Amino acid sequence: MSGNTLGKLFCVSNFGESHGPAIGAVVDGCPPGLALSADDIQAELDRRRPGTSRHVTQRQEADQVEILSGLYEGVTTGTPIGLLIRNTDARSKDYSNIADTFRPGHADYAYWKKYEHRDPRGGGRSSARLTAPTVAAGAIAKKWLAQTYGVKVRGYMSQLGPVSIPFQDWSHVDNNPFFAPNADVIPELEAFMDQLRRDGDSIGARIEVVAEGVPAGWGEPLYDRLDADIAHAMMGLNAVKGVSIGAGFGCITQRGSEHGDEITPDGFETNHAGGVLGGISSGQPLLVSLAIKPTSSIRVERRSVNRANEPVQVQTLGRHDPCVGIRATPIAEALLAIILMDHALRHRAQCG
Amino acid sequence: MSGNTLGKLFCVSNFGESHGPAIGAVVDGCPPGLALSADDIQAELDRRRPGTSRHVTQRQEADQVEILSGLYEGVTTGTPIGLLIRNTDARSKDYSNIADTFRPGHADYAYWKKYEHRDPRGGGRSSARLTAPTVAAGAIAKKWLAQTYGVKVRGYMSQLGPVSIPFQDWSHVDNNPFFAPNADVIPELEAFMDQLRRDGDSIGARIEVVAEGVPAGWGEPLYDRLDADIAHAMMGLNAVKGVSIGAGFGCITQRGSEHGDEITPDGFETNHAGGVLGGISSGQPLLVSLAIKPTSSIRVERRSVNRANEPVQVQTLGRHDPCVGIRATPIAEALLAIILMDHALRHRAQCG
Amino acid sequence: MSGNTLGKLFCVSNFGESHGPAIGAVVDGCPPGLALSADDIQAELDRRRPGTSRHVTQRQEADQVEILSGLYEGVTTGTPIGLLIRNTDARSKDYSNIADTFRPGHADYAYWKKYEHRDPRGGGRSSARLTAPTVAAGAIAKKWLAQTYGVKVRGYMSQLGPVSIPFQDWSHVDNNPFFAPNADVIPELEAFMDQLRRDGDSIGARIEVVAEGVPAGWGEPLYDRLDADIAHAMMGLNAVKGVSIGAGFGCITQRGSEHGDEITPDGFETNHAGGVLGGISSGQPLLVSLAIKPTSSIRVERRSVNRANEPVQVQTLGRHDPCVGIRATPIAEALLAIILMDHALRHRAQCG
Amino acid sequence: MSGNTLGKLFCVSNFGESHGPAIGAVVDGCPPGLALSADDIQAELDRRRPGTSRHVTQRQEADQVEILSGLYEGVTTGTPIGLLIRNTDARSKDYSNIADTFRPGHADYAYWKKYEHRDPRGGGRSSARLTAPTVAAGAIAKKWLAQTYGVKVRGYMSQLGPVSIPFQDWSHVDNNPFFAPNADVIPELEAFMDQLRRDGDSIGARIEVVAEGVPAGWGEPLYDRLDADIAHAMMGLNAVKGVSIGAGFGCITQRGSEHGDEITPDGFETNHAGGVLGGISSGQPLLVSLAIKPTSSIRVERRSVNRANEPVQVQTLGRHDPCVGIRATPIAEALLAIILMDHALRHRAQCG
Repeated sequence: MSGNTLGKLFCVSNFGESHGPAIGAVVDGCPPGLALSADDIQAELDRRRPGTSRHVTQRQEADQVEILSGLYEGVTTGTPIGLLIRNTDARSKDYSNIADTFRPGHADYAYWKKYEHRDPRGGGRSSARLTAPTVAAGAIAKKWLAQTYGVKVRGYMSQLGPVSIPFQDWSHVDNNPFFAPNADVIPELEAFMDQLRRDGDSIGARIEVVAEGVPAGWGEPLYDRLDADIAHAMMGLNAVKGVSIGAGFGCITQRGSEHGDEITPDGFETNHAGGVLGGISSGQPLLVSLAIKPTSSIRVERRSVNRANEPVQVQTLGRHDPCVGIRATPIAEALLAIILMDHALRHRAQCG
Repeated sequence: MSGNTLGKLFCVSNFGESHGPAIGAVVDGCPPGLALSADDIQAELDRRRPGTSRHVTQRQEADQVEILSGLYEGVTTGTPIGLLIRNTDARSKDYSNIADTFRPGHADYAYWKKYEHRDPRGGGRSSARLTAPTVAAGAIAKKWLAQTYGVKVRGYMSQLGPVSIPFQDWSHVDNNPFFAPNADVIPELEAFMDQLRRDGDSIGARIEVVAEGVPAGWGEPLYDRLDADIAHAMMGLNAVKGVSIGAGFGCITQRGSEHGDEITPDGFETNHAGGVLGGISSGQPLLVSLAIKPTSSIRVERRSVNRANEPVQVQTLGRHDPCVGIRATPIAEALLAIILMDHALRHRAQCG
Repeated sequence: MSGNTLGKLFCVSNFGESHGPAIGAVVDGCPPGLALSADDIQAELDRRRPGTSRHVTQRQEADQVEILSGLYEGVTTGTPIGLLIRNTDARSKDYSNIADTFRPGHADYAYWKKYEHRDPRGGGRSSARLTAPTVAAGAIAKKWLAQTYGVKVRGYMSQLGPVSIPFQDWSHVDNNPFFAPNADVIPELEAFMDQLRRDGDSIGARIEVVAEGVPAGWGEPLYDRLDADIAHAMMGLNAVKGVSIGAGFGCITQRGSEHGDEITPDGFETNHAGGVLGGISSGQPLLVSLAIKPTSSIRVERRSVNRANEPVQVQTLGRHDPCVGIRATPIAEALLAIILMDHALRHRAQCG
Repeated sequence: MSGNTLGKLFCVSNFGESHGPAIGAVVDGCPPGLALSADDIQAELDRRRPGTSRHVTQRQEADQVEILSGLYEGVTTGTPIGLLIRNTDARSKDYSNIADTFRPGHADYAYWKKYEHRDPRGGGRSSARLTAPTVAAGAIAKKWLAQTYGVKVRGYMSQLGPVSIPFQDWSHVDNNPFFAPNADVIPELEAFMDQLRRDGDSIGARIEVVAEGVPAGWGEPLYDRLDADIAHAMMGLNAVKGVSIGAGFGCITQRGSEHGDEITPDGFETNHAGGVLGGISSGQPLLVSLAIKPTSSIRVERRSVNRANEPVQVQTLGRHDPCVGIRATPIAEALLAIILMDHALRHRAQCG
């Protein structure tokens, strides 16, 4: 029942803090027989890695993954896969100031209220750094889904603050630091981010994740619906404040005669459902949207209190992402892959 | 791991179909010592009950709950609480036509692909009727939360199709069939629904749920965050296509200097976070929004296929809600209460 | 995570108390497509039913099961199966005396310490009556295992107090009130029980359960081994104080050259392993033994205390089994079937 | 739901193989505020470590544990504790012979049937080496239980093959390689083991584990009883074929007037119940017994088959424990501590 485990049959148990010795995950439930190497995982980790452009945190982490178990002769055995990533650029410094005050919008306040004793170094457990083990586990799920069912999970940024990013082509996504599916909008995004950095401020973003090739029939009717488990995974990602499927919040103003996707012998005519009907996959592409809030660690001075509840002015220096949404795409893909693999296994259990 | 169970320490195991003998739930994990009666539960069921206005399904169900276990002398014993609701207005008719074709936007298609054998009577397991046991279980959670922590969970409709419903006052909510917190907009809502019914069409809606009095510190850092579990529960509700917390999708265009809620010695200045920071409650009111799609069972003719994948025209007669959002408020409240109680117990386990 | 649920993929959520309105279970995870009727379940319930011979409790309960959900046209749909059994012979009387004192060896003491508020009527939740829903759920598992894999689960009593019951033939088991696989020993068992009843005392017993036809490969390496889950289920049965597999406690004095079952091209030569190697089924018959303690509710006077911790003499009158082991055989079979079905589904999920 | 996780609120997720790069565990659910160091854990690991006497395997492993996360300034934070133990004496050799034949009584046969692809090096996942992470996690549970509730968990060997080991005093247990609570019997045990080693054979053993200071009220009534969860944990340990509580299999011949422990104002008079009544702790010491089978890896030649099902003679050379029971005591203590801590947290959740 551990809160730090994602998935029920494909289980990812995450551990670590931003500036501790290491982060990682135990991945339990991967079927035997999948060819897997550290390179498969590293490729995904490198997409999420910090320090790769001027628009993200400048912390230098190789995010080198070591597979500790679960493989024999390059193939999964069905036993747990231990994944280890050493923290290498954890700066040793005095955290007493950070530990004493609370950043507006940051988890530090809630952690303090909950645990009373917490690791303040680099955000500790609340750091987005902990998404790296998720991405590593997701790489396994992606490969298994692709090989077993031909499922392809991809994502992109569709909006950065006020700048909409119209979808042009998947080929652009991995050719810019924003995971933008549009080559023309990159200069505008770069200019926006450069000004934002000068302002010492941060910004929100919107991410889309798509899974193609998902067979109809994955998911369960009540509570653990496929869309419900996707929502759980996505809302469990740092900084996410909204999750939607298909038409999403747009469905509020739709009529049934517009929203319900008509079916012909050649398939569905539209995909307002976003690939899920009654909590179960319909065979259409799964369409998921995330709203990601602006980072709380900013240079702009803000009012807050310290642990003695005295008023203070807070200004966060150090290395931070001015838009956590920029690196969110590979993480959201990983989360979707994990949930899909989990439901693939659940479906196999229940329906053979 | 059953897909039909909600919660990890406060566990609601739901069973039943729309036109089977009965629906119900086993509620496991309620602490001993809570005074509880069938009336406590009935009061919430009556808020969700069908047939109470012309704007909802005309199916007549008393939704009379029987408590089968878990009480002694009117007080919970800590053992599972069995809840039973008999179906009384299940119409006996020929379902072979419904069982052979698929309604655009309806779960029947996905069920067929998953199970191959399903109960087509009134939607079977996919019917919104199965939210009644959720509401019954939520009534227990509401009472326990109120008595133990002073938590108050309430909800309202904030939009019906194109009609926005500005918040006036909580006192209005239970005085109209829409759970609208605004007395002035009722005539407009009624007119809209009357026309919609004449059109044989359906419409989406937006629901807000609020929990006040939640102590800071409930929730877990990773994966099982409080907001993640709320998203899971809400997206697991029939017809929900989007869930957001606090600023929700509005956070995309916010800057960090705007989104992060400043703190003074007297408390937070704003609540863009919606009461959750880093997955853990902040002590502010929890603010949750749901987007609910229009019902798929409509009189308007639509293109679809039958099980032989031949083209058919589908028109759904019978008793259906033209806006499932209308009855969604008490259900969403119940879901939020269940998740909060679950996390209250998890917090007690972990932090004493 | 509910404590009252058995199984992880085939999940049995049990509710009820001895003298409450009803007992039952929600069975979640049964695959679609299994032909099932109340009669299938009733047949197993009737084997466990009280009042069928003078050697068991004289409480009269028809133990009539009603299937509330999960079936359509006599076939499982894959959705939860609600099972309801009304209590009909719950005697209304004054329980204040029982509620105030503790029977030596009885759960009442521990319940009081745990919950402070408990249902004392007929043992409440601690009554062996709560094994009826287990038997009902087990009937489903038995049928599914038999039809899907040809697995046959059977059990018998091998010892009643000092009387050993040598195995003669399976055909005897259902022809005597003891589930004894031996026709010749019945008179001795009856005489022993008659004297015991005159003494107002109770006695222990040993039960064997066997599953034939289990394919090799079910179970998991660590922690959730097949034998571990069997031990959990069996030790979770009222009055069980010991569980063993294959050679059991006899293995303590065995050498490896004796215990390890040799293999020939025709199969294993012996079955000291009891059908499980390294937590995984070997393809041999599963052999499970249970030690069942004597009932604590006896007429013999015993020393105890009341809730004020004052010394009292306790003598338990009323209707009780003088040997709970007598009715334990069908229950142990049900438990084994539930665990096997759970692992069959887990195996399907993991290994396809 | 991962099979490699033990505990529901205090969760130990185990990973690794005997000759892979590393073994370890993620321990999720430890409350914040516990002072903890690697030394606390190392002390328990050193008790289980191989190579410390001539009676156990001569594999040399330092079993040095590294704590990867979950601590800040020497105190637990409430977040997952990552534990890493590098394998250092994994011999590189040709395993093709071992991989092709099956040792009588060994898990290799069942693994092959289940996974088809397995790690044969040193037994892979089925090796008793995987008990090291269990012991490491158990050290945390032991410390927390001792500090929070004054619970003391200890164990000893009570029988080695035909040699009974009468309990003299706890002080002897850690002063001999057998964990025998008796100084006088050591020469006999050593002579027995020396002869056994010359014979190239192995032997079974019996282990007792005791927990003192457990408060009354831990455990749940049905299915997840305290004794059931203990049985699950113990039967999940390599080589265990039987588990009993209190009187254990001796209860079969007991009468109720003998078995039921009488109570006086000063406490219980006996402890046949072994500290559990109705699945819930009674406040008496918890008494658990394990039957441990002889190792299957022996020099004595035995009949078996290869993967082509051809008859072969199997003789296992290499480094093996001739009695796995010898090192089982600290492992069984760890398992009991883990289950007790899990139920302590569950009790806190449910009963405050």
